[in-house]
Amino acid sequence: MAGSVAMYQAMTRMGHATGTDFRQSPNLSGAAPGTTVLVLGAGLAGMLAAYELNRAGYNVRVLEFQTRSGGRNYTLRGGDTLTELGGATQKVGFSPGNYINPGPWRIPYHHQAILHYCKAFGVALEPFIELNHNAYLHDTASFGGVPQRYRHVSSDFYGYTAELLSKAINQKCLDQTVSADEAADILHNMKVWGLLDKEGAYTARLASERRGFDTPPQAGPDGAGVPSQPFPRAEIMRSGLSQYVGFHMLNDFQTTMFQPVGGMDMIGRAFARQIDGLVTHNLRVSAIAQDDTGVTVTYEDHNQAGAVQTAKAEYCVCTIPLPVLNQLDVRVSAPMRAAIAAVPYASSVKVGLEFKRRFWEEDEQIYGGISFTDQQISVMSYPSHGYFEHGPAVLLGGYMFGPAAWDFAGMSPEERIQAALAQGAKIHKQYPAEFSNGVAVAWSRMPWTLGCCSQWSEESRRAHYRTLTTMEGRLVLAGEHASHVGCWQEGALLSAVSAVTQLHARAVGAG
Amino acid sequence: MAGSVAMYQAMTRMGHATGTDFRQSPNLSGAAPGTTVLVLGAGLAGMLAAYELNRAGYNVRVLEFQTRSGGRNYTLRGGDTLTELGGATQKVGFSPGNYINPGPWRIPYHHQAILHYCKAFGVALEPFIELNHNAYLHDTASFGGVPQRYRHVSSDFYGYTAELLSKAINQKCLDQTVSADEAADILHNMKVWGLLDKEGAYTARLASERRGFDTPPQAGPDGAGVPSQPFPRAEIMRSGLSQYVGFHMLNDFQTTMFQPVGGMDMIGRAFARQIDGLVTHNLRVSAIAQDDTGVTVTYEDHNQAGAVQTAKAEYCVCTIPLPVLNQLDVRVSAPMRAAIAAVPYASSVKVGLEFKRRFWEEDEQIYGGISFTDQQISVMSYPSHGYFEHGPAVLLGGYMFGPAAWDFAGMSPEERIQAALAQGAKIHKQYPAEFSNGVAVAWSRMPWTLGCCSQWSEESRRAHYRTLTTMEGRLVLAGEHASHVGCWQEGALLSAVSAVTQLHARAVGAG
Repeated sequence: MAGSVAMYQAMTRMGHATGTDFRQSPNLSGAAPGTTVLVLGAGLAGMLAAYELNRAGYNVRVLEFQTRSGGRNYTLRGGDTLTELGGATQKVGFSPGNYINPGPWRIPYHHQAILHYCKAFGVALEPFIELNHNAYLHDTASFGGVPQRYRHVSSDFYGYTAELLSKAINQKCLDQTVSADEAADILHNMKVWGLLDKEGAYTARLASERRGFDTPPQAGPDGAGVPSQPFPRAEIMRSGLSQYVGFHMLNDFQTTMFQPVGGMDMIGRAFARQIDGLVTHNLRVSAIAQDDTGVTVTYEDHNQAGAVQTAKAEYCVCTIPLPVLNQLDVRVSAPMRAAIAAVPYASSVKVGLEFKRRFWEEDEQIYGGISFTDQQISVMSYPSHGYFEHGPAVLLGGYMFGPAAWDFAGMSPEERIQAALAQGAKIHKQYPAEFSNGVAVAWSRMPWTLGCCSQWSEESRRAHYRTLTTMEGRLVLAGEHASHVGCWQEGALLSAVSAVTQLHARAVGAG
Repeated sequence: MAGSVAMYQAMTRMGHATGTDFRQSPNLSGAAPGTTVLVLGAGLAGMLAAYELNRAGYNVRVLEFQTRSGGRNYTLRGGDTLTELGGATQKVGFSPGNYINPGPWRIPYHHQAILHYCKAFGVALEPFIELNHNAYLHDTASFGGVPQRYRHVSSDFYGYTAELLSKAINQKCLDQTVSADEAADILHNMKVWGLLDKEGAYTARLASERRGFDTPPQAGPDGAGVPSQPFPRAEIMRSGLSQYVGFHMLNDFQTTMFQPVGGMDMIGRAFARQIDGLVTHNLRVSAIAQDDTGVTVTYEDHNQAGAVQTAKAEYCVCTIPLPVLNQLDVRVSAPMRAAIAAVPYASSVKVGLEFKRRFWEEDEQIYGGISFTDQQISVMSYPSHGYFEHGPAVLLGGYMFGPAAWDFAGMSPEERIQAALAQGAKIHKQYPAEFSNGVAVAWSRMPWTLGCCSQWSEESRRAHYRTLTTMEGRLVLAGEHASHVGCWQEGALLSAVSAVTQLHARAVGAG
């Protein structure tokens, strides 16, 4: 029961991935007009910091390493190219209109900061389907390696759980724990929830209302359905599949999730429009220093053959990802230095695969949602848009964390795609015949972030988090790493709110 | 634990509401061109029968009672009027773009016939959100009548179920039932699925990853979250709320469900376009007779002051709802007569309420999905479209079957709306301040159907179903009532496929 899902589930339990209660934009009134601020990085955190400071009257300049704004808010479409550390370059071959989001790809309903700014900046959202009862669960060592529909597994797991608890209640073995009244309540609940029959058994006729019929009910004289048979209980309990049954119930994956219409970078583009003229791209920061009067940032200007330049401002918001920042000459206190060095980043890989047609919809009635597997690819996610369309479509053919991601990051892009195809074919036999082209993004090989996102441990959180997120002199850090909502865009935005709030308090003399 | 949901759940268990395996349009090749067919009723069943027969070369005419096609495929928008039995007339006051679907409103992913024709006829579909973890469950006698979020109830119900079964396993009381290996498997599964701690207990820290935090994790130095406390186990088990926990797992409500963009009648309109010129509206059928040469239908033509007319054809497909058909002079065998009389129709009421703003989204972070209550209104469904929009929006403020529907049908439309408002205010305190206008449709008072849909019992199914769905002479019935997928548009379409297939076989001499 290892694998990325278990890892991710463990991760969310450490508080990396939960809800927020953002209510409104920060109040930065009373700024001295023209107070200068340098923002390092034009990802969502940097852009939001720049946006809020700029409209509060600060004089803001944003320095960005890449030739685009957005950072990990990123969408790849046909014609895009990307070059990773080591020099491998991929040119995306997707058909017009198709895309993959190699970074963030879904937005929980309780991430109210990003939803707020999407609404404010006019970004259209549509539901992202997380749970699909008709998608597959696949475990190499269970059911002979044959993928099973979520509805079959979840229905049987619930039915047998209800049956066993009913039996225990009826055998009086929980009488020390539950009163007679509660025992009766539980028996009733198990029957309703588990679809048990009058005798408290989980059987084909009722089970089929959840797991589906072998022959579905139809119309006409011979239209009666043929119920399906539950799997043997011990097979269900032994399989690694039940680990996936509750995944969609975690806070971050509950309904209703959203995605921007047209690709996640619709958000980055909307943010960029709000700070038009403030960002300079293609600048590589090499050092950050500060004294009592301000912050000095040294950078290579790759618009001018790498000429070394400096920029000065009264304050600085630094959103550079920690693995990169840790390599720069940053003059901060020893504890801040230690904090910057303390947080490892996850090595994540995503593979986008374009197929000639939506075989998952046309052949298998899967519209959006996720199939899980214990293979390295971990998940396969079907597009939550363009349902029923003809022509080529892109699915997420793998999304790896941990050892699987290290493995895939060590392969060439083409090898990653081939591996994802081989593993995916265990779930969809149409893979070889329908495959068109793919792209594979290894985040540890992206030079501008050197990893997917921060992975705080409980110990490092205790030792370093407060230092990392507290303004030091004239410098304050932001980014998903500077939050308890790590690995989510929401964390980046909330960190920016915290950073500009601290900066403003300092600037107006209250902090 | 009575109420409409329990009734509906019971109903689905009788096979009224399950999947289909439609693959393609019926093959009606070899028809003698010009063979005449009368189709009675321009609902989905009648329109599909007409479409398929017409393109197979039959000479088809459709007689429709109403001044519109679509039947129960029906959408109400601002400016629409409807008059029910008894004469009460409602004029819908919704703002432009808003609508309610008083009949069918959602499409399961496995209803492949309707999905097929939506695709073929160019009807755009979007996800319908059935389950919303952040919506409410409300039981007048539980939790002091205070509505609780689905995520709180489901998380606690699952956690305590897992905790109790683990305890029973650990106390060895299921050793007669499960082997030592399976016992270990079950303990592991309960821990993962139930979010139990190392000791097998369901506690605040882990529970919060599903039920949510009291103070959600944020960014900045003080961003740690505060876990929420589970409800007491006995309170969860005693409440009527756990009956709702598994509702969305029934075949008909599993993800991914769909709705047409813009209203359910986009489907009826698309069907109508396919049979342009074949339908005459405003005709009231009064008698159906047949002999060896053909079928004669007598009707009042309300385009001509009710003048009595007859129409003749070689064959007839009758889709008139059974409560109406049962009142006509239909010359069929005694068993068919008995079958027509045998099937009662559900009395269902739907209430559409327009509010000045989307307070459920803006104040409560509920985007689509359903809240359940044990009050008469039974459900409250938030629109699965127009998320985040400003301005007025319409929600489904009640959807009743059984005694609640009889009660509401006995009220005036205005009384129904007032009752729905009073009950809904127990769940959303914003109701009185934000209400704008409403409409309430009692299906038992719709003169053209006299009920919502067929309610076969197992006994009537055994006694009458084969007769009702088998072509008799030159007459064959269709409609959702002539299927095992009753109360769904899918049943209507599949019944039409069955009817035209039988008719064609008869016409070409094979049947």
